[in-house]
Amino acid sequence: MITPVILCGGSGNRLWPVSRASFPKQFAPLVGCETLFQKSALRSLGAEFTNPLVVTNSNFRFIVKEQLQAISITPDAILLEPAQRNTAPAILAAAIYLAQQDPETAMLVLPSDQMLHEVEDLKVSLKLGLAEVARGQIVTFGITPTYPETAYGYLEIPKPVKHGPLQPIGFIEKPDAARAQEMVKSGSFLWNAGIFLFKAKDILTAFETHAPDLVKQVTKAIKTSKDDRGFYRLEAEEWASVENISIDYAIMEKAQNLSVVHLACGWADLGSWDAIWRESPKDNEGLTMSGATTSIGCNNTLLRSDSEGLEVVGIELNNIIAVAMTDAVLVADISRAQDVQKAVDALKAKNATQASAFLKDHRPWG
Amino acid sequence: MITPVILCGGSGNRLWPVSRASFPKQFAPLVGCETLFQKSALRSLGAEFTNPLVVTNSNFRFIVKEQLQAISITPDAILLEPAQRNTAPAILAAAIYLAQQDPETAMLVLPSDQMLHEVEDLKVSLKLGLAEVARGQIVTFGITPTYPETAYGYLEIPKPVKHGPLQPIGFIEKPDAARAQEMVKSGSFLWNAGIFLFKAKDILTAFETHAPDLVKQVTKAIKTSKDDRGFYRLEAEEWASVENISIDYAIMEKAQNLSVVHLACGWADLGSWDAIWRESPKDNEGLTMSGATTSIGCNNTLLRSDSEGLEVVGIELNNIIAVAMTDAVLVADISRAQDVQKAVDALKAKNATQASAFLKDHRPWG
Repeated sequence: MITPVILCGGSGNRLWPVSRASFPKQFAPLVGCETLFQKSALRSLGAEFTNPLVVTNSNFRFIVKEQLQAISITPDAILLEPAQRNTAPAILAAAIYLAQQDPETAMLVLPSDQMLHEVEDLKVSLKLGLAEVARGQIVTFGITPTYPETAYGYLEIPKPVKHGPLQPIGFIEKPDAARAQEMVKSGSFLWNAGIFLFKAKDILTAFETHAPDLVKQVTKAIKTSKDDRGFYRLEAEEWASVENISIDYAIMEKAQNLSVVHLACGWADLGSWDAIWRESPKDNEGLTMSGATTSIGCNNTLLRSDSEGLEVVGIELNNIIAVAMTDAVLVADISRAQDVQKAVDALKAKNATQASAFLKDHRPWG
Repeated sequence: MITPVILCGGSGNRLWPVSRASFPKQFAPLVGCETLFQKSALRSLGAEFTNPLVVTNSNFRFIVKEQLQAISITPDAILLEPAQRNTAPAILAAAIYLAQQDPETAMLVLPSDQMLHEVEDLKVSLKLGLAEVARGQIVTFGITPTYPETAYGYLEIPKPVKHGPLQPIGFIEKPDAARAQEMVKSGSFLWNAGIFLFKAKDILTAFETHAPDLVKQVTKAIKTSKDDRGFYRLEAEEWASVENISIDYAIMEKAQNLSVVHLACGWADLGSWDAIWRESPKDNEGLTMSGATTSIGCNNTLLRSDSEGLEVVGIELNNIIAVAMTDAVLVADISRAQDVQKAVDALKAKNATQASAFLKDHRPWG
């Protein structure tokens, strides 16, 4: 049995105006009708899985509960972070929590802002991973890159690429365009999917070796935490002092017992609007539409309305993202979708009060 | 003394979503803070003018009243058309109405969907026009074309162009691009501004000569009309049978006593979003913004929000029109702004009930 550990406590601005501080992208139906969080939870259904353990920010607890109910999934528990930290503290908290019950528990860590498709081989990869885990390895999954994405992390692996478990040689975070091109061409790099598999006790050993201070802090936060009607609240004062560090920096780049398993599937980190456009079903002209929208001759364009009474009409647009909500409309060149962060910063600077409404107080799906 | 006659009964879809059937473009602040109707009314202020006579559709009577009050102009009267007709019936009704008081009244007919700027010479042109009117002429004003616009009407005039009154040789409505290019190059064509000057009795004579049936119909509609607290309602049943014809077709292309006076000013018929963009004040990158809008690196673009709580954010847009209202967002390539009509037709076809809200029931300025 594997316990899925779903991480959904993050929040960002690059998918503004749909993604807000109080309603981040993983809880929005960005591609298809399920949210990214729901897609992650549905991904780990089956006889080999227990109910999932969810780690999220305290602010999102009711969204998580409702969205799991809507797809008839009962969580094993929902761990609540009092403040946003990176992946290392979240995974460590989950490991400590699960080890209290059974240190041998195999944990499958799943981010909740990804698209996976054509996942026929997922079970094959999991089986390979479990064999590694059985001998005490920490497993990270890698995806064959299909284009030189500069926003992803890469795993360097020994040539030639085999499907079996590999020892990674190195980690490269967000390379520039030229380096990404080289890496994809070389065939000895995989995208780092941020999906991990390990026993609770083995990741705890790794944390004790490479991040002993973090273990002390998170252990305290767990020990004084409280079970609040199915929510397991980590203690706020202890959590405040917990280091904001990713599992890659804290553990993966240091651990000696790391194995890379190849995951043969379509994969995307839905981190920006161009990625959403790429991953959405499109017509022959590259047009994707959702909500109340009308197109007259648009190509390679995403039209989206998240407000029932707000019709978005596009005329002869090329390579444009147009996303409308009741309080904000984003219109961007598709190749500059990463600059949404700049726009959000500009909004903040322009009008703090107004911006706070844009960035925090909106919740379009009830 | 000249009586300004302001025509503001028309409605169209090419400036959707701002322009709606119940709230057409002339009542919207499209460039600057006054509406086009208000700009027209303000244009004819001064010692040489009486209070204006306004001819509008019955549905717009309160909008007209409020917008005149807001700029402290008291109308001589407001004639209400029970149904939309073209310019000939409206001008004829105004002429009959004014001739009842004084057949010698000089009428300056002003459309209300135009931009005029650098109008220093307006008074010179008016003086030239009045001299023509004194000898029984019907005067139409022409503008030197600055580019080969295909959406305008042109007046052919004898070469070389003089500023003084000219006898027009012909009328060309909406030429194709090649013909428009030739015409502008030739120097013997002016844009037909739709601004006219004549005595009430002279235009009545012209109508009696060239459109005697129309005179009978409109006279009946006027005779049975009622004064309703400052509104002068034309009789609906009579008006229903009135021909839908423009003053150009009914009179100007036939009258022998027609003079063209050159009007030396910047001029535009604000008939579509590309025209609004052209006429709006812009920054060095060709960007014009109004309402709650934010630009990150946009060029030759119009960003507009007509809803206080709706922020429009443009990122790296080129040649784009983005206009947002509470119920609709238009995003169009600037060169295809004329296709807004297609979009409105598509909306109508898509959902009759919803479309009717888009097209009729919206009134953004209270």
